[in-house]
Amino acid sequence: MQNYKITISYDGTKYNGWQIQRDKAITIQGKISEVISCFANEKIEVNGSGRTDSGVHALQQTANFLLKEVADPNEILDYFNRYLPEDIAVMTVEKVDEKFHARYNCKSKTYRYRIHTSKIPNVFERKYVYNYCDKKLNVGLMKKAATMLCGTHDFKSFCGNSHFKKSSIRTIFNINICQTKSEITIDYIGDGFLQNMVRILTGTLIEVGVGSINISNIPAILESKNRLNAGFTAPPQGLTLLKTEY
Amino acid sequence: MQNYKITISYDGTKYNGWQIQRDKAITIQGKISEVISCFANEKIEVNGSGRTDSGVHALQQTANFLLKEVADPNEILDYFNRYLPEDIAVMTVEKVDEKFHARYNCKSKTYRYRIHTSKIPNVFERKYVYNYCDKKLNVGLMKKAATMLCGTHDFKSFCGNSHFKKSSIRTIFNINICQTKSEITIDYIGDGFLQNMVRILTGTLIEVGVGSINISNIPAILESKNRLNAGFTAPPQGLTLLKTEY
Repeated sequence: MQNYKITISYDGTKYNGWQIQRDKAITIQGKISEVISCFANEKIEVNGSGRTDSGVHALQQTANFLLKEVADPNEILDYFNRYLPEDIAVMTVEKVDEKFHARYNCKSKTYRYRIHTSKIPNVFERKYVYNYCDKKLNVGLMKKAATMLCGTHDFKSFCGNSHFKKSSIRTIFNINICQTKSEITIDYIGDGFLQNMVRILTGTLIEVGVGSINISNIPAILESKNRLNAGFTAPPQGLTLLKTEY
Repeated sequence: MQNYKITISYDGTKYNGWQIQRDKAITIQGKISEVISCFANEKIEVNGSGRTDSGVHALQQTANFLLKEVADPNEILDYFNRYLPEDIAVMTVEKVDEKFHARYNCKSKTYRYRIHTSKIPNVFERKYVYNYCDKKLNVGLMKKAATMLCGTHDFKSFCGNSHFKKSSIRTIFNINICQTKSEITIDYIGDGFLQNMVRILTGTLIEVGVGSINISNIPAILESKNRLNAGFTAPPQGLTLLKTEY
């Protein structure tokens, strides 16, 4: 068996997220798996570094799969990009040790959330940003709240899956907020993120920015381990998985 | 009467170009005109700096229109962006002298043509580039040919409209070609361009780049005033009207 590591970029607009589902939902993992199974002439399972929600994009997602017969990485790369739809691209293919697993070995992930704050829409980026121009956001307060969310915490209050039974303890290494004339971008770097976690963190930071959540309440929101106390779930189109590190 | 100058940005993918047509075709000018007519409660004619082809984009197109009743530019701006579809945005609205005309007063236009040359598709830019990775392009030769096309010439050989009866003499101030790892961009600055002209110039430069047109033939192609002697018409999605100057 030969193990392959691939990096993938996708526009998630039309997809029901990364993860293959039982129904007829169209997913990124499903498309990748379909093409490589066709190449290998047998059903191939593809492991992603993690799931991305429906409508979320990726600049660099990582996955791996095992093939019975060794093939040239360049040949696999060309095959992927010939048969994948135009909103999914495989950027690299490399042979890796059989022990490599895209999910278990992932050391950190970087997500970017883009908030378009100008009244003038950006037509070329419209599918990759969240338009939020009704209220002015206090970025200084958002930065303070972001600092309080960094570190190792139980993020149960920021998990969209109420039936989640495993540990919801995660470490956020850094949250970096940048503001330009028409956009606020929030980069989240962490060892892993729960379902909807980045979007709920973003919704919470937005609520801090407009003043509907006071930063003094952030520790209590974390401690409560209750989803109802955190902010709203920011819409998926503003979110992109930027990078996965091993 | 009050004259208004507006700047517009649009993703041309879904449109049959700028210009209103007699049939049911959906055009940018049609959409702009529809919204401002609704605002003014009467049919308003909108003059653009020039037409863009079906599928061509604009970062900054300019237009003007006359209103019987004076209205606040900010109010007009908000109205446009509330009612225009998400792939058209009005960026600025300003009152101008009654004599101002977006087409007649336009001093220069800058168009950018983007050629994606990597085998790995760019999923986020896929609608704004022409994928051309079959053959390697000799950018040095393309730059030499570009220099020969600059200046004042009769560009009849580069006009897509064989019935065009007016003067086909135009001045290209500059053609600037840049190459990155995955893209070649060609910026054209001129006093005006004929129908399909930028796309035919691009097709010709591509053919120079692959060697199917020799640069020594460029003067003869210009002199022949025959469309059949120039290169192919590069596809519209790679083209964006970057700037219009007055």
